[in-house]
Amino acid sequence: MAKWVYSFGDGSAEGDAAMKNLLGGKGANLAEMSNLGLPVPPGFTITTEVCTFHTAHKGSHPPDLKPAVEQGLARMGQIAGAQFGDAHNPLLVSVRSGARASMPGMMDTVLNLGLNALTVEGLAQRTGNRRFAFDSYRRFIQMYSNVVLGLEHGLFEEILDAAKEAKGVELDTDLEAEDLEAIAARFKQRVARERGEAFPEDVQAQLWGAIGAVFGSWNSARAKTYRKLHDIPEDWGTAVNVQAMVFGNCGPTSATGVAFTRDPATGEAILFGEFLINAQGEDVVAGIRTPQPISKLVRERLGGRKPSMEEAMPEAYATLKSIGATLEKHYRDMQDVEFTVQEGKLYMLQTRTGKRTADAALKVAVDMVGEGLIAEREAVLRVDPMALDQLLHPTLDPHAPKERIAIGLGASPGAATGEIAFTADEAERLAGDGHRVILVRTETSPEDIHGMHAARGILTARGGMTSHAAVVARGMGRPCVCGAGMLKIDSAAGTMTAGAVALKRGDVVTLDGTTGEVFKGEVAMRQPELTGDFATLMQWADGARRLRIRTNADTPADAAAARRFGAEGIGLCRTEHMFFEPDRILAVRQMILADARAERDAALAKLLPMQRGDFAKIFAVMHGLPVTIRLLDPPLHEFLPQNDEEIAEVARAAGSTPAKLRARLISLHETNPMLGHRGCRLGVTYPEIYEMQARAIFEAALEVRAAGAQAVALEIMIPLVGFASEFEMLKDRIAAVAETVKNERGVAPEYLIGTMIELPRAALRAGDIADRGADFFSFGTNDLTQTTLGVSRDDSGIFLTEYLAKGLLARDPFVTIDRDGVGELVRIAAERGRARKKNLKLGICGEHGGDPESIRFCHETGLDYVSCSPFRVPIARLAAAQAALKG
Amino acid sequence: MAKWVYSFGDGSAEGDAAMKNLLGGKGANLAEMSNLGLPVPPGFTITTEVCTFHTAHKGSHPPDLKPAVEQGLARMGQIAGAQFGDAHNPLLVSVRSGARASMPGMMDTVLNLGLNALTVEGLAQRTGNRRFAFDSYRRFIQMYSNVVLGLEHGLFEEILDAAKEAKGVELDTDLEAEDLEAIAARFKQRVARERGEAFPEDVQAQLWGAIGAVFGSWNSARAKTYRKLHDIPEDWGTAVNVQAMVFGNCGPTSATGVAFTRDPATGEAILFGEFLINAQGEDVVAGIRTPQPISKLVRERLGGRKPSMEEAMPEAYATLKSIGATLEKHYRDMQDVEFTVQEGKLYMLQTRTGKRTADAALKVAVDMVGEGLIAEREAVLRVDPMALDQLLHPTLDPHAPKERIAIGLGASPGAATGEIAFTADEAERLAGDGHRVILVRTETSPEDIHGMHAARGILTARGGMTSHAAVVARGMGRPCVCGAGMLKIDSAAGTMTAGAVALKRGDVVTLDGTTGEVFKGEVAMRQPELTGDFATLMQWADGARRLRIRTNADTPADAAAARRFGAEGIGLCRTEHMFFEPDRILAVRQMILADARAERDAALAKLLPMQRGDFAKIFAVMHGLPVTIRLLDPPLHEFLPQNDEEIAEVARAAGSTPAKLRARLISLHETNPMLGHRGCRLGVTYPEIYEMQARAIFEAALEVRAAGAQAVALEIMIPLVGFASEFEMLKDRIAAVAETVKNERGVAPEYLIGTMIELPRAALRAGDIADRGADFFSFGTNDLTQTTLGVSRDDSGIFLTEYLAKGLLARDPFVTIDRDGVGELVRIAAERGRARKKNLKLGICGEHGGDPESIRFCHETGLDYVSCSPFRVPIARLAAAQAALKG
Repeated sequence: MAKWVYSFGDGSAEGDAAMKNLLGGKGANLAEMSNLGLPVPPGFTITTEVCTFHTAHKGSHPPDLKPAVEQGLARMGQIAGAQFGDAHNPLLVSVRSGARASMPGMMDTVLNLGLNALTVEGLAQRTGNRRFAFDSYRRFIQMYSNVVLGLEHGLFEEILDAAKEAKGVELDTDLEAEDLEAIAARFKQRVARERGEAFPEDVQAQLWGAIGAVFGSWNSARAKTYRKLHDIPEDWGTAVNVQAMVFGNCGPTSATGVAFTRDPATGEAILFGEFLINAQGEDVVAGIRTPQPISKLVRERLGGRKPSMEEAMPEAYATLKSIGATLEKHYRDMQDVEFTVQEGKLYMLQTRTGKRTADAALKVAVDMVGEGLIAEREAVLRVDPMALDQLLHPTLDPHAPKERIAIGLGASPGAATGEIAFTADEAERLAGDGHRVILVRTETSPEDIHGMHAARGILTARGGMTSHAAVVARGMGRPCVCGAGMLKIDSAAGTMTAGAVALKRGDVVTLDGTTGEVFKGEVAMRQPELTGDFATLMQWADGARRLRIRTNADTPADAAAARRFGAEGIGLCRTEHMFFEPDRILAVRQMILADARAERDAALAKLLPMQRGDFAKIFAVMHGLPVTIRLLDPPLHEFLPQNDEEIAEVARAAGSTPAKLRARLISLHETNPMLGHRGCRLGVTYPEIYEMQARAIFEAALEVRAAGAQAVALEIMIPLVGFASEFEMLKDRIAAVAETVKNERGVAPEYLIGTMIELPRAALRAGDIADRGADFFSFGTNDLTQTTLGVSRDDSGIFLTEYLAKGLLARDPFVTIDRDGVGELVRIAAERGRARKKNLKLGICGEHGGDPESIRFCHETGLDYVSCSPFRVPIARLAAAQAALKG
Repeated sequence: MAKWVYSFGDGSAEGDAAMKNLLGGKGANLAEMSNLGLPVPPGFTITTEVCTFHTAHKGSHPPDLKPAVEQGLARMGQIAGAQFGDAHNPLLVSVRSGARASMPGMMDTVLNLGLNALTVEGLAQRTGNRRFAFDSYRRFIQMYSNVVLGLEHGLFEEILDAAKEAKGVELDTDLEAEDLEAIAARFKQRVARERGEAFPEDVQAQLWGAIGAVFGSWNSARAKTYRKLHDIPEDWGTAVNVQAMVFGNCGPTSATGVAFTRDPATGEAILFGEFLINAQGEDVVAGIRTPQPISKLVRERLGGRKPSMEEAMPEAYATLKSIGATLEKHYRDMQDVEFTVQEGKLYMLQTRTGKRTADAALKVAVDMVGEGLIAEREAVLRVDPMALDQLLHPTLDPHAPKERIAIGLGASPGAATGEIAFTADEAERLAGDGHRVILVRTETSPEDIHGMHAARGILTARGGMTSHAAVVARGMGRPCVCGAGMLKIDSAAGTMTAGAVALKRGDVVTLDGTTGEVFKGEVAMRQPELTGDFATLMQWADGARRLRIRTNADTPADAAAARRFGAEGIGLCRTEHMFFEPDRILAVRQMILADARAERDAALAKLLPMQRGDFAKIFAVMHGLPVTIRLLDPPLHEFLPQNDEEIAEVARAAGSTPAKLRARLISLHETNPMLGHRGCRLGVTYPEIYEMQARAIFEAALEVRAAGAQAVALEIMIPLVGFASEFEMLKDRIAAVAETVKNERGVAPEYLIGTMIELPRAALRAGDIADRGADFFSFGTNDLTQTTLGVSRDDSGIFLTEYLAKGLLARDPFVTIDRDGVGELVRIAAERGRARKKNLKLGICGEHGGDPESIRFCHETGLDYVSCSPFRVPIARLAAAQAALKG
């Protein structure tokens, strides 16, 4: 026969902390605290299996549950010295949910259960505190009616407010016993009127009603949605905890509160929390009275006048502090506890692992290693890699005053303040004059790159987390807020409005790229700190991981930043951003618009020294490390002139006419450029472009080496391969260039050659591609996601958001790799590639390379490295370590 | 020890017709004819294995080849009564290539080998025909110098022409013995001058030079390219046939010719061919003299005056006719033979299966069944399914005079004549007035559909085989020429130019949608015939196939046409074309531009009766058969107004403003519409659209049934599913509509529900989708190809053509399914789907459904049906039968 009920209290328990699956988080920790001998009011936990039974049997309980609950109640009564339903000495209980995974605010609680017209009098008599008894009674009626009977909270608030108004007082605590008695009576009348049935007087009926309601709340619509969104299985169920009430509302020597064993904002080792005298738990949450700090130090820091718990209740405080230390030592982590002081005596009602900021997580983890509480590997597992993002960028001072004028998507973390510029050129000019600039655009395009570089932050009215602005901003480490739809931007006029607020060119705004908020004027900031605890944790992480971490960097500055963040090479150096530099774009356009091979060669000859120079600078920064260079990838029309002025300029330079240029522009137009004439297709149709790039790479590498720098390990990468024949043709062309360079310079360039795997066909035919001599594969999971799912990143905003909201998708597949679809293709490619070429090097260079869950996938799939934007490098180092430690 | 050489001749042979792999096609058939006792000049075949050895050993031969060749020569000499290199009675030989697969024009031949200064005198003496001897000699020097020594043909033509001019004659036959002797001498001088080395006099050196050259020609660049394009393995190699010469140039009783055992154009059972008196084989090819017909009947039909072979050489003709009959009986197929008559005696030099037109293939196959030569299943295998295309459309009379003005891609077969219209509206108006119209556009869009319907044929200046014009035209069965880039179209002015030819609105042109040609004016046509032999062969095919054949049809007219062609259901009924009808587009636009649900519902309510009416008409035509209806698929902006006038019209109708509409247009713009907000993504974000469509389908089905017609088997298809969750949500919505309709009408609509598999992710997750209740999968291989290969059909023209030309791709993947990539995904989906749902129905509805090679893939993969455009239905029936018979 299944054991449905586990008792706890009085220094022992039938369960323990390891039984979370069966007892839920709260029940398991109540049992554990009992076993530790801590002052826990007695009670019992009805297991999650009963919930499963409840769901499967349309709300009915197992038949043998009832005697078990009665036995549990009897044991509670013995310990507490009271009896459930007893007219003279009634035992009151709380009934609370407690699932395996925390589902904050999703599920229900009933306090003070066991009160009726008879027992409330007994309680009043036994405690000699009539006010307390009726305060508890009116609280119970309201809560039970709401949670179990489904009546609205507001119905009761109306009555309470009317009573306070009639009496001319403001606070609940100003009401006296007779007031509360009258209020309870009116509450019951209201319940009877609403339901056509009296409020239940039978305490057994009350109890089973509450138990049923808590189990039922597992299947509420909001709980289901929450589980869908947080990947919590439906069949986990919740436990129900029935526990003897202790009362913080017995008078001035009673109180209730919550505390963290360390400061959850900073990690500082002080008891940190709030308490309220003469109150029950929900008062703290309701915010009717302002809770006071627990420790004197915090009160003094905040300049508060009312006494802290340390000062008002020194004994209870001392006990709490000692229990906090015990719990930390026992659980080996910072705890978040709930407690009640009843007439001077402290009771513990809950303990759980405390949530904390990134700063605190880092400090607590490193401190606890120092204190001998945890091992280094545990410290590495304790810090959420994504939380590091907060540490790597300037952040807004949380205490600074702010005027928020708009909110969009937090697309690239960090905070930035500057003057508004509405065009890239304007941004560049202002920045050149020493101004701090925020570039504000409806949306950005590759033409804006120089302005984005010049700006401190980027703000757009359109586009999602993977829009051009977001991707480029993350790559550059610029804070970015995207898709702030309430902004109306008129860049020609140099104005924008955000609701009622009108701003113009040069006005100052502040962005929070983490929260997506936009503020008027300047807001005070805090600068990041990459030494100390941060450096210590990173060092431990590096010792644990197997994956190498590279970066996506196109400029010497990005490369240098990434190297400071610990990047072990470049996994993706795009060559096209170099083409957008103002002094080059003209030559690029001539190359594209050339009618004949000779013209194109002339334009390429102009570009060669520029590209060679770019590469040389990057190679100098990355000396000694691998650098993967991707040959030209985007559709050529991205480089083309967009307006009449630019067309005229190019026509002049090329000795052509605007009309001819326009015709060429039309012929280059593509319906779906993502699937068009780009990537290695350019290399196949215009091999001279790739040959120029290969030459620039080889010559730069030889020059840097000749100048005495340590060589980089060159990896030349061909994008968008779908057919092994494409790879083979281009590989041969590049080899021929290497041979020419060797003949010219007398030294053979050393390099590996490989390909992006970013098309489903390439993944499926990975064996062929390896056979044709690919030295490495780099998974371009951005494009692989686009093609595998048939979803354009640029156009997905409108429906992906709705998919996430409707629960059709658990996660944005452009943020976290779609394991089931895209992931299978990555696995297939890895297997088939390595089956043909054992030492094939495998990496990933999509945006996923900086996402912890995706990094875990890469670890499990046996890739050799991940490559991510410079600011994601520390995140990736930590995530890779965690993947290895969990693996 | 390997046997390198196989002798034949004198009524026996060491090989036979079954040994094609070893002896090549020509050698195997020469052996077979010898075995049949036919008059074949003796000779031997050097096997393809020697070629493989030759390639692997840098041009050297196996050491034991030489004695085998000498033995073969000796045997030939015995039979022929002459000896190779003998000064008095020399044996002359031909050296010809002969691969396993025919590679016309790719490889080399040398005739009259064995002549030198000495043997030519012997030949002259022995034959008493000095002119013949020196004619053969000069031919040999020229051919050998070209093929083996690599000298240009033209060098010798110059000398020949000079000699004729000097003598004042026009024809080679007017030259006399001394002229030819002088020419041969000049040829040899020229060779010596060019090469710095004399022409080889040693007959052994000549022979081995020729053998080496033929083997070497296997590895020539053009031969390699040809093999790449035709999927002929590199390691097959060619054989070399060395055969005793017989001479058609011995005088007026000698001749050479080629013949088909039936008319290759019509299939009629007459000996059909051409011959030339006093000539060698290359003279027929060179076209210097006009060959004469072989049979009297043909000569009379053509009105020729010179005698036919039947009249000029009655005995040789009788022998040839009898041999033709023998060969047909033996090979059980129409033969294409080469022969020579030497002084009245007929010799056979080659026999092979004769190429033929579609008409002839059909007639020969059916006739031969009637003649008891072949079985019905063989007849089915004999006809190339693609050739049927020629039979199903009107064709241009091949003998009619024509003035070609442009050429593009033959995008949709058939011929059409009509007056030029430059806009869809103009085409519709002209057609309404009873004119025949050719719609001429730079490219077409969905807005042109009504004009394409109204036109007899479509001509575009841009776009490839899978452009909008091509796909829609094929679907409608309209002849179409696409991508005729030399056309300059000015539709506003109503003019176009094709090179020097200028045409205007209303001028008549004729298109050949098979060849891609465009002609000025009207060209005479022949109409197709679907009865007789065609019907007979189709009936045999239907008995043999396993695959069912459905059609892609959106209108009652298309459905009816397809049913006449033998379609067994509709596999793809698109619902969006119905939306473009002029009387509906306004309501569609209101639906799309609606700001709120209520507005959208109002627009949908207008569309409901229209869609219901459309479906009812199609269901009436397709009674008793399955009909698969795809819910709305294309991106909404395809339906939107394009110009100011249309915007104003919609704004008026919707009670909105042009400015608001324009803003909405911008917000609906997509960068990559193919990967955007379309397919079931529309159903997820606007479920009311799919609900309206489902209601229209159910109501139409019930109404048609109520009206007494046989019900169709309804299959509702959800497009572009990538996640099982999408399918499940929409399936539930549609089920709810069915329930509502049942409640309203008292009859439950019966239907299956399934999905397109057109995204790689859907293929990989097919098991999940089947689990969620899909009754069928229809592979949308157009889109699956686009996403798997990352290639946009609309944009691929520019590079796919180059890929095919450079040999990077063997076939256009939008024409023939990419077995290795897309095909693997289809196999994966079929396996995973059926593993979860055994009776899952599987079909294909992409353009590949009408391509024979792709149909074979579908058969092998175990699909249940293919669906193709109406005019492809007979092709698919035949291809499916062939797949089953080959399988």
